[in-house]
Amino acid sequence: MIIVMKPHAKPESIQKIKSVIEAKGLGAHISDGREVTIIGVIGDKTRLQDQNLEIFEDVDKIVPVTESYKLANKKFHPEPSIIKVGNTYIGGDSLVIMSGPCAVESREQVLATAHAIKKSGAQILRGGAYKPRTSPYAFQGLEEEGLRYMKEARDETGLAVICEVTSLAAIEAAVKYVDMLQIGARNMQNFYLLKEAGKSGLPVLLKRGLSATIDEWLNASEYIIAEGNPNVVLCERGIRTFETATRNTLDISAVPVIKERSHLPIIVDPSHATGVRQYVKPLSMSAVAAGADGLMIETHPNPATALSDGPQSLTFEQFDELCNELRPLAALFGKKF
Amino acid sequence: MIIVMKPHAKPESIQKIKSVIEAKGLGAHISDGREVTIIGVIGDKTRLQDQNLEIFEDVDKIVPVTESYKLANKKFHPEPSIIKVGNTYIGGDSLVIMSGPCAVESREQVLATAHAIKKSGAQILRGGAYKPRTSPYAFQGLEEEGLRYMKEARDETGLAVICEVTSLAAIEAAVKYVDMLQIGARNMQNFYLLKEAGKSGLPVLLKRGLSATIDEWLNASEYIIAEGNPNVVLCERGIRTFETATRNTLDISAVPVIKERSHLPIIVDPSHATGVRQYVKPLSMSAVAAGADGLMIETHPNPATALSDGPQSLTFEQFDELCNELRPLAALFGKKF
Amino acid sequence: MIIVMKPHAKPESIQKIKSVIEAKGLGAHISDGREVTIIGVIGDKTRLQDQNLEIFEDVDKIVPVTESYKLANKKFHPEPSIIKVGNTYIGGDSLVIMSGPCAVESREQVLATAHAIKKSGAQILRGGAYKPRTSPYAFQGLEEEGLRYMKEARDETGLAVICEVTSLAAIEAAVKYVDMLQIGARNMQNFYLLKEAGKSGLPVLLKRGLSATIDEWLNASEYIIAEGNPNVVLCERGIRTFETATRNTLDISAVPVIKERSHLPIIVDPSHATGVRQYVKPLSMSAVAAGADGLMIETHPNPATALSDGPQSLTFEQFDELCNELRPLAALFGKKF
Amino acid sequence: MIIVMKPHAKPESIQKIKSVIEAKGLGAHISDGREVTIIGVIGDKTRLQDQNLEIFEDVDKIVPVTESYKLANKKFHPEPSIIKVGNTYIGGDSLVIMSGPCAVESREQVLATAHAIKKSGAQILRGGAYKPRTSPYAFQGLEEEGLRYMKEARDETGLAVICEVTSLAAIEAAVKYVDMLQIGARNMQNFYLLKEAGKSGLPVLLKRGLSATIDEWLNASEYIIAEGNPNVVLCERGIRTFETATRNTLDISAVPVIKERSHLPIIVDPSHATGVRQYVKPLSMSAVAAGADGLMIETHPNPATALSDGPQSLTFEQFDELCNELRPLAALFGKKF
Repeated sequence: MIIVMKPHAKPESIQKIKSVIEAKGLGAHISDGREVTIIGVIGDKTRLQDQNLEIFEDVDKIVPVTESYKLANKKFHPEPSIIKVGNTYIGGDSLVIMSGPCAVESREQVLATAHAIKKSGAQILRGGAYKPRTSPYAFQGLEEEGLRYMKEARDETGLAVICEVTSLAAIEAAVKYVDMLQIGARNMQNFYLLKEAGKSGLPVLLKRGLSATIDEWLNASEYIIAEGNPNVVLCERGIRTFETATRNTLDISAVPVIKERSHLPIIVDPSHATGVRQYVKPLSMSAVAAGADGLMIETHPNPATALSDGPQSLTFEQFDELCNELRPLAALFGKKF
Repeated sequence: MIIVMKPHAKPESIQKIKSVIEAKGLGAHISDGREVTIIGVIGDKTRLQDQNLEIFEDVDKIVPVTESYKLANKKFHPEPSIIKVGNTYIGGDSLVIMSGPCAVESREQVLATAHAIKKSGAQILRGGAYKPRTSPYAFQGLEEEGLRYMKEARDETGLAVICEVTSLAAIEAAVKYVDMLQIGARNMQNFYLLKEAGKSGLPVLLKRGLSATIDEWLNASEYIIAEGNPNVVLCERGIRTFETATRNTLDISAVPVIKERSHLPIIVDPSHATGVRQYVKPLSMSAVAAGADGLMIETHPNPATALSDGPQSLTFEQFDELCNELRPLAALFGKKF
Repeated sequence: MIIVMKPHAKPESIQKIKSVIEAKGLGAHISDGREVTIIGVIGDKTRLQDQNLEIFEDVDKIVPVTESYKLANKKFHPEPSIIKVGNTYIGGDSLVIMSGPCAVESREQVLATAHAIKKSGAQILRGGAYKPRTSPYAFQGLEEEGLRYMKEARDETGLAVICEVTSLAAIEAAVKYVDMLQIGARNMQNFYLLKEAGKSGLPVLLKRGLSATIDEWLNASEYIIAEGNPNVVLCERGIRTFETATRNTLDISAVPVIKERSHLPIIVDPSHATGVRQYVKPLSMSAVAAGADGLMIETHPNPATALSDGPQSLTFEQFDELCNELRPLAALFGKKF
Repeated sequence: MIIVMKPHAKPESIQKIKSVIEAKGLGAHISDGREVTIIGVIGDKTRLQDQNLEIFEDVDKIVPVTESYKLANKKFHPEPSIIKVGNTYIGGDSLVIMSGPCAVESREQVLATAHAIKKSGAQILRGGAYKPRTSPYAFQGLEEEGLRYMKEARDETGLAVICEVTSLAAIEAAVKYVDMLQIGARNMQNFYLLKEAGKSGLPVLLKRGLSATIDEWLNASEYIIAEGNPNVVLCERGIRTFETATRNTLDISAVPVIKERSHLPIIVDPSHATGVRQYVKPLSMSAVAAGADGLMIETHPNPATALSDGPQSLTFEQFDELCNELRPLAALFGKKF
């Protein structure tokens, strides 16, 4: 932590800060510059958390020099993590494809989808049983009934299954049926839910919040890991910007940034990022080329009648074609698929 | 709802859409333009929620013409709502000031603050007992112990009290101690929490999400009202933009926009919007002049040692000075304070 | 300037940077922290502009500690500037109102507007003769003919006049007719134009770019002042965000931020910020309460037929009513109007 | 164009609008919905440009149904354009790589770079002679001297050369030396400059503005094409968002969106998009996989001493390695490189 003083800061102001730092058992390293004086704090800065040095007299600003996330930080865990989900591994040299409908609507829909995506090569079935919807009047999900269909699909096909959870009650239900929990974008800073997901024992897919910085996202993952659950996979799904041509703006740079800052695997969801079916293929290719460890892609037996997000869902034929085109690309990047 | 067809759409494509609309018992009004054909849907468009017309052949786009929120909508409830909280009213011709610390830290801190802000004229005491913090290593709140201090402050001073809730467990605890629940920005689209707050019976202060549009915010309020709880107050607290001079960007236009679209009262939180103490006064004045029904302002007996958000908290003296300057301004706008 | 090294940076890497800094005649102050080493640069950092220390081995990041703008910086010019335009002063204890049509359309329109706004109390007439329009097929302005009408209005009413300039040719024409040049949002980083405006000798109103940070805005003003022209007034007119309820998002916090960082006056343009007529009054009030030195408000004899921005223009009656309501508010803030 | 009326709009209000539309020789198609009435305008809506229907009584909003750009619009020009620059073609089945320093610093630097990038396979040399810099105190470019070095490099190597222009004077100089003009992000809506570039006769690379929507970008290209110059290539270079891990946010979705809306080629500049050297390779791969027609990548003989944007520049070795990895990827997407 660095404290930058205002120009012409009084010696007493500098001395005051030095005393506060030293009173906490920390070192204060003072640099007198031509224009301003800078004070470096040496030692564990968390000891200063009850001292708001920003508002001490003559302080201009505080500059943090270390990240607040530790367990997710590559600096302290240089080897990339590989997360086991069912019989599948996320991270390392495999490319994982999660696919399925936005919302679970019926047993038939889920089973048909599971068989279709498995045939095309997907390893994980997704499907929403608890749907966070902007309007209270939109379809809200089948809840536990939906989870049962997901489990049945898993038992029939051997695919691992993942479902979004939106409350403690949903987690308690989901652990009985699924292999991986998903925390959605709108709940990325629902810290209570993060802690409960951490305690669940299941691996967690953590989607990036619509307006979350990469730093906040890694801090959110820290909530899960700090509960003793290191099995976190990140999912970039688009951030909110001024552009309206796509529903969100896929921040493709997040892939190499995460690879540099964290050991956690990262996958990309081009369906939610764009909201438009015809952009899913180019952005899937793009994500793999940027180094993503996998993709989450929405499919539906009949997108025209889907109860949620139909316009961005692929038909089974479109999904199969996409998988066929992904194969040589994955190979080029040394990924098995 | 309007369906805009692509140029040169085939007559069969147009006919197909007409049939789908009519099969749902709705009317389809076709306008053949010079460049494109437009189809207006007449009737209750929610009947079309399982038909994704966007992906029908030759469809260019779908344009909604009515808002999805109804109960919060001024069109169907033209009179402004006035919400009772303890013995105070929010909305109408009163200016309500909520004040207190970001986080409840101790009994002494809460009681001292309650007495100080009451003397200056505030009507409601705020204080966080459950703190959503970016990092799991930051102070997370005193929980139920904090709620007890708040109730004690209410009993001593007669001020109404408000606390943020972040889970069902927190709501269950809070209803025993406080007069109003707060849903924070990070939980604005935690729909599960919104429903539970709706069921609590207490009035709810709903903060705007960091990247929520005004439309999404009103839809979030709809979740609460749809549970039979019409006592919702909105709080603008800054949105996330590229500007870094302030922590967030206060969207002051939200005040007149909400006044035009909804009957719900709206207050402004300049402390969280800016994150900087010296901007709190000008933005408080600004909010009242824009027509806000109230303010939420952080105060602390000793901001330099506050465990959360100290840099944006006012001292009691600064708060008193602000209240004194607000009084003639409120009078100019016909607001009692 | 502070150089933050990576954890476990090699001593040679630190030594290398120290040598580069000292070779430029600067001082290097090294702080060995528990986790990282920090190097403070002492002296004029511009000497390092051909050394990209970011990419030296083991460097984590570079943190600037001083602003790059000097002439616009309050630190080096603590007294607020007051700018003379015609017979009017902007800054200090006066509230200046600039008003008029978005685009100059005819002699009659300009003269009628000038007389109307003068009667209501405005001091400066605005009117666009060179219009930057998103589409090349929209009305582009009357150019020099428009400037002549503006001058005629000035001669008839005694109002000062301001016009936007978009090229060197436009500046060369405008200096013959107007009292103040306006640089529009889309040209805020047209550095060539800024320099030419600086050389013109006329005071300049510099609008904030749609996605410009306050820092970039002050740096843009520095381009004008560095040409020997200190007469710059800033104009906040909304920034681009995800919110679509208003055309742009008025960043009201920019007013106190500018007042803290710079000595230049700042006015607010609620017409362009919102794009909606009924929000102009509340945001005008809001801007004055936040401490703005003035307002720029669009008026038109008949907004329904305006060739540009009609939906946000006030009628003369609406403008007169606004001025009447602004008067007691200005008085409350010690501003003459 | 569709006019959406407010609920309970008076019949006279609807009639008034119908009359205005018909008075312009256009058709008005009225749909009476259950909640609102909608009026479709049939014919050339530009005839309504002096009628601001938004502010007519009882009007709720206006919804445009056709794009304002015509010449850049794929609807009216379905075949993809291929643009000739020197002896190179941009678009179609070739992948074009433009490379070189951010700023031209010396004859030696430019010639060394030209030879190095040609050897690696690049077809076009870039180099800035007129530099738009945030601060007036940063290096502003060698101007015409820089252009001469670029021409010399062209003559020696046969590479085509491109330079950014920032004023009419710069265009007048550049046409004597270069094969293609570049309009930078900060000038994307400098409409005066766009028109002059259109008149120059040279092909133009149009970078996207930092906060420009795709629609505004295509409208900007329309300014150039409308001057009789159809040779426009678009360049996505990142947009401004709240994320600070990268300098800008590369909007990779812009590639498929442009491919769907326009016939113009689009290339991607990962150097400016990220500002960080180590992200250039993954984002280059990503752009090609998304369907981009080319890349613009900064290289420098010695990035550590570059006068502009050194931290994002590749060394010649890094560039050569990147080109080698791009080759099989381009082949996979049917692109020659």
